[in-house]
Amino acid sequence: MLFKEKLEHSWEKSDSFVCAGLDPDVDRLPQAVRDAQYPIFEFNRALIDATADLVCAYKPQIAYYAAAGAEDQLEMTIEHIRKRDPQIVVILDAKRGDIGSTARMYAREAFERYGADAVTVNPYMGTDTLEPFINEPSHGAIVLCKTSNPGSGDFQDLDVGQERLYLSVARKVATLNANGNILLVVGATYPEQLAEIRRIVPEVPFLVPGVGAQGGDIRQVISSGIRADGLGLIINSSRGIIYASGGEDFAEAARQKTLELRDGIRQAMQ
Amino acid sequence: MLFKEKLEHSWEKSDSFVCAGLDPDVDRLPQAVRDAQYPIFEFNRALIDATADLVCAYKPQIAYYAAAGAEDQLEMTIEHIRKRDPQIVVILDAKRGDIGSTARMYAREAFERYGADAVTVNPYMGTDTLEPFINEPSHGAIVLCKTSNPGSGDFQDLDVGQERLYLSVARKVATLNANGNILLVVGATYPEQLAEIRRIVPEVPFLVPGVGAQGGDIRQVISSGIRADGLGLIINSSRGIIYASGGEDFAEAARQKTLELRDGIRQAMQ
Repeated sequence: MLFKEKLEHSWEKSDSFVCAGLDPDVDRLPQAVRDAQYPIFEFNRALIDATADLVCAYKPQIAYYAAAGAEDQLEMTIEHIRKRDPQIVVILDAKRGDIGSTARMYAREAFERYGADAVTVNPYMGTDTLEPFINEPSHGAIVLCKTSNPGSGDFQDLDVGQERLYLSVARKVATLNANGNILLVVGATYPEQLAEIRRIVPEVPFLVPGVGAQGGDIRQVISSGIRADGLGLIINSSRGIIYASGGEDFAEAARQKTLELRDGIRQAMQ
Repeated sequence: MLFKEKLEHSWEKSDSFVCAGLDPDVDRLPQAVRDAQYPIFEFNRALIDATADLVCAYKPQIAYYAAAGAEDQLEMTIEHIRKRDPQIVVILDAKRGDIGSTARMYAREAFERYGADAVTVNPYMGTDTLEPFINEPSHGAIVLCKTSNPGSGDFQDLDVGQERLYLSVARKVATLNANGNILLVVGATYPEQLAEIRRIVPEVPFLVPGVGAQGGDIRQVISSGIRADGLGLIINSSRGIIYASGGEDFAEAARQKTLELRDGIRQAMQ
């Protein structure tokens, strides 16, 4: 199936723009899973079981698994998502970016080893470095454009002539989008820039981090970023969902926070 | 020990600017190691044993290990370098870049899990994303500046006012260099830009890829990039060294290519 179709099916089936970020810090796992053989996986499994009907996507951030030497538990997590609902989009948040031969290895890591549908990538090294991630239409690449962090302006906001660098990135990667499998990362913390980028790439889906702990406003994200067809957004919350409670009720609390985010988005769309 | 000192000691002890890139593609391993229990590690071990007296640094590219699910063999490789000669600098080539909390996990991956001395990082997300990699003076961060690939100009060469983006990156990261542990990646394939960046940051060491398979010229690299003290360069070759022969003599052939590169650099400095 084309990645583009998979994403649209997932939006329709879930009737949700929510992406839950699976960023399990081993030092913050609830007591209830700490003694398990695979504590990270048990944490994720409970979170997935509690939220699978509420999300269009899951986004594991690979750094949390790599720091803990827990690549096996990342594999198990993605397998569990597949078992639970194969229509949910899995985004490997890895922000890869390297020259051709190495980028092909990173694509193999994301798509073959982990079986992710899409992977986040960094455009700094140039468009040739993006090709291994986009030349197969069954998988997608989500290119960093305007990120949610305080320092994102250091380089992304530099004026490169007629416009700022992040707009140049959006414009240039859009020319590579023959397979319709390129998305952009645009932070919820910069709603004006979100609107500006939406005007340049009316069809490209956005992965939008920054609505939870980072404080982005849902209403502004929707009004700035929604496509003409009422779709086009994957709105991520990680810490706001997975650490909603540190107690035994962590999964139920995560469900509650996911529901609130989903319904908050629905209200903002009315 | 300060990273800065470790690097200077390694240059002095080895009397070499050569960095050997350990990028073992499982599909290209010599027959001699393919049936080993840990074929990637056996390949690397033979390469390290054959070249350890000729290099100032080794640079494993993590994508090759991640694609093969061989993080354990990366750990074993770095341990072997330490056993062989703890003074050699180990650079984890990972081109990481992410927001603070995630960047801290990547720093943990590189420095604690793998025990690398330095890690390559991508500046696109902003200077705040570099901090976890540089706030400890015993480790270094090697920031992408002007990369060696054909498409590196797509964004790096954009004019951001008085200068191009890669110069702006060099200038900005230099202001963060209180610990003297920031380096820059500057491709051998762009010698004019190498000279330009050297003028802006006279003290910052450069990691220079692109002299082997990519065709960069050693003489130009030396004349453009050497510091006033006659040091300042880590010149990487990966495929040119590790695939010098696909036969049983692969390690001896790698030694020969490493010697040629080391001596070619020495000649170019005269």
